[in-house]
Amino acid sequence: MTGTPRPELVGFQAAVPGFRAGRDTPRDFLERSLERLQRWEPALQAFAALDLAAARAAADDATRRWRSGQPLSTVDGMPVGIKDVIGTADLPTGLGIGVLADHRPPVDAAATAGLRRAGAVVVGKTATTEFAMTHPAPTRNPHDLDRTPGGSSSGSAAATGAGIIPAALGTQAIGSILRPSSFCGVFGYKPSVGSINRGGSHDTQSQSVIGVLAASLPDLWCTAWEIAARVGGDPGAAGLTGDMRPTPATAPSAVVHLETDGWAAVSDVAGERFARTLDTVARAGVRIRHRRNDPAVAELELALRGALDRARTLINIESLWPLEQIAARYPGSLSETLTERMQTAAAVGRDGYRSLLEWRRTARTAYTKAIGEGDLAVTLAAPGPAPRGLAATGDAALTVAATVLGAPALSLPVYEQDGMPVGLQVIGRRDHDAALFGMADWLRQRA
Amino acid sequence: MTGTPRPELVGFQAAVPGFRAGRDTPRDFLERSLERLQRWEPALQAFAALDLAAARAAADDATRRWRSGQPLSTVDGMPVGIKDVIGTADLPTGLGIGVLADHRPPVDAAATAGLRRAGAVVVGKTATTEFAMTHPAPTRNPHDLDRTPGGSSSGSAAATGAGIIPAALGTQAIGSILRPSSFCGVFGYKPSVGSINRGGSHDTQSQSVIGVLAASLPDLWCTAWEIAARVGGDPGAAGLTGDMRPTPATAPSAVVHLETDGWAAVSDVAGERFARTLDTVARAGVRIRHRRNDPAVAELELALRGALDRARTLINIESLWPLEQIAARYPGSLSETLTERMQTAAAVGRDGYRSLLEWRRTARTAYTKAIGEGDLAVTLAAPGPAPRGLAATGDAALTVAATVLGAPALSLPVYEQDGMPVGLQVIGRRDHDAALFGMADWLRQRA
Repeated sequence: MTGTPRPELVGFQAAVPGFRAGRDTPRDFLERSLERLQRWEPALQAFAALDLAAARAAADDATRRWRSGQPLSTVDGMPVGIKDVIGTADLPTGLGIGVLADHRPPVDAAATAGLRRAGAVVVGKTATTEFAMTHPAPTRNPHDLDRTPGGSSSGSAAATGAGIIPAALGTQAIGSILRPSSFCGVFGYKPSVGSINRGGSHDTQSQSVIGVLAASLPDLWCTAWEIAARVGGDPGAAGLTGDMRPTPATAPSAVVHLETDGWAAVSDVAGERFARTLDTVARAGVRIRHRRNDPAVAELELALRGALDRARTLINIESLWPLEQIAARYPGSLSETLTERMQTAAAVGRDGYRSLLEWRRTARTAYTKAIGEGDLAVTLAAPGPAPRGLAATGDAALTVAATVLGAPALSLPVYEQDGMPVGLQVIGRRDHDAALFGMADWLRQRA
Repeated sequence: MTGTPRPELVGFQAAVPGFRAGRDTPRDFLERSLERLQRWEPALQAFAALDLAAARAAADDATRRWRSGQPLSTVDGMPVGIKDVIGTADLPTGLGIGVLADHRPPVDAAATAGLRRAGAVVVGKTATTEFAMTHPAPTRNPHDLDRTPGGSSSGSAAATGAGIIPAALGTQAIGSILRPSSFCGVFGYKPSVGSINRGGSHDTQSQSVIGVLAASLPDLWCTAWEIAARVGGDPGAAGLTGDMRPTPATAPSAVVHLETDGWAAVSDVAGERFARTLDTVARAGVRIRHRRNDPAVAELELALRGALDRARTLINIESLWPLEQIAARYPGSLSETLTERMQTAAAVGRDGYRSLLEWRRTARTAYTKAIGEGDLAVTLAAPGPAPRGLAATGDAALTVAATVLGAPALSLPVYEQDGMPVGLQVIGRRDHDAALFGMADWLRQRA
């Protein structure tokens, strides 16, 4: 981005002491956001819809609450973007599908409602790839407008990465939170499957989850926690547990170096930076386990062979409804890529689908065996920086493992290559998300 | 219903040989349905919306297919009703909530789409209680217009029980398929949880399931099977398995007589009829197990103590979204009963919800231990005939067990009291629905 300022993350939790002390207000915070929006958005195209008047009114309400010492939550007054597959009654919910651009559900999705009740200020809907799959949004990468921001939570990553907003909601069924987080240099959080209520969101696939992209670990945690505290997890799931405040930095008992299929594509620079992090971890006295010194890790990597293709088939089958309905009702409304994916998925059949579920169960069992209480799995969130061009959203092979495993994962923007960010990925035990944040913070201070 | 003819069930599978032989056609079948609709509907109020022109066109298409010997499925041309919580793009989806009476989702729900693709003829939307909970629909019982048809699948039960249509979709999160089936004298099928894809249906609670109310066991099975074959089960679930044709009558290895809390309210007549059935079973050489002779059954009944209250709290909490959103956006749109239920549920909190999930897991484990491969659990589907009056939908205590357990269950209209039907309930092992149909048919021939 020659000639444009380097984007900087703008956190909200860091601003909270200012609200408390009366030095700053959510309305002022929002106005600074909107200045950056004005500067960046014409080039970035991170938003599918905006409602600045409603945002300003909500920020004024939050300002009054902070002034009276009665904020609704840790995110009261925080400007947020909502990925455009998550329902909003006041703004369109277009799913990245042109023909649905004006679609409005009768009520807010649970996650949207949770954020609003916590006082968060909805600035707009963030652009998504077509139905949160591969066909790209028009969004660009704030670190280089000629590169993809990644997908499918493209607008959430770009808007947060450009510092326009401190946090945005995303969804991940393959790598749709962690990969764009890595490419746009933001913190990304894919919770354990089931952690955040997906009512009214269109990411209905069995391994999909609503998560957050944000300017810091505390911004990630507070956003997710405040939603779950108000609307819980998916029906039948315990939902996100843990304290309102992020877990303090904690050393893991061991670090599992997870390579998986995607590791073959890792760039020399990113691989070297990652290796240095592992050295630092080892020097801190934490044991590094990998497939060469640990049979359980070897078995896990074996179970994850071919995970990207398998997981794609699995979620494509689960997406046949509603995509077949949209295709039938609005002919020509879906991209060729998506149409072909649906046809391929339909040919797999019910028995093929059941085999994929069985494969996923096996992989999850292998993970439970490989990662003990207090262990942390680490890998990269992407094989290198965001690729040039906007026609494709980059390689998802390194992010699919955590999704298949239903495990919580974070992308930490700690590496750089050619002036572009690359994320370190940390993966925890399923339903131990709070512990993951503590270990991630420990590692972040060392990476 | 003095002066009106006694309702008779009208099956579709029984008509198929006529279509094959060219003696009958789906269009003629539909016209006979519509004659009964004209006669009954003004008093019954079973339908929330109708589209007879579309139904006739669909029946003509099916007629052409049967004539050319190329029907799409075993239910090609079958007139069906769709419970009004299940989405339809061409007809409103009002959820039994007045303010949403004109709501139309952009696409058909998965189950609706599966039925249409199998050639079924959607006659209309069937009336439901408010959000498939307790506040009644205006629907009446075809066996006595002064009695409730039961709920929440009120219109599906009444329309099928009056012989208007051979089958209708329902949903059950407590007893919403089996209880109205018992009250209206139809066959009711609540599949194993996850068996039929709920995409686009508003019954999103974790123990809810889409099922069928129909004129016969083959009508139940074929309807459910043809849907699942096209759109599968819930994301992550194996979905309904088994052959396209219903399992032939098969004796169970043992019969578990399950009483649970609700048994205390069973009427003398119904209890006596049920006891006679058990005698017949025992004379056929099948062992009867109950809590007095089997510790595993005793443990199961203990685990199910208080199930109705607990299950109601559980599904109420899971219904907070979207009900809180509807209440906020459309003030005064919900009944007082529902508003109070929501307030009570909101007060339970996340930890209370997790305790309920834990309780349900314990009950499911107890059931797995109590019911062996080839065993059949039996109880009544209701304590007696439909109560008089339309202000309440009757006692659900006997139906909640199968729902909590996630197990497949059927109501068989084999008993009668005071000229009103009472259903025999049979419950199978989870995900062994086809086997349940075989055992149910065996028992039906003996009850």
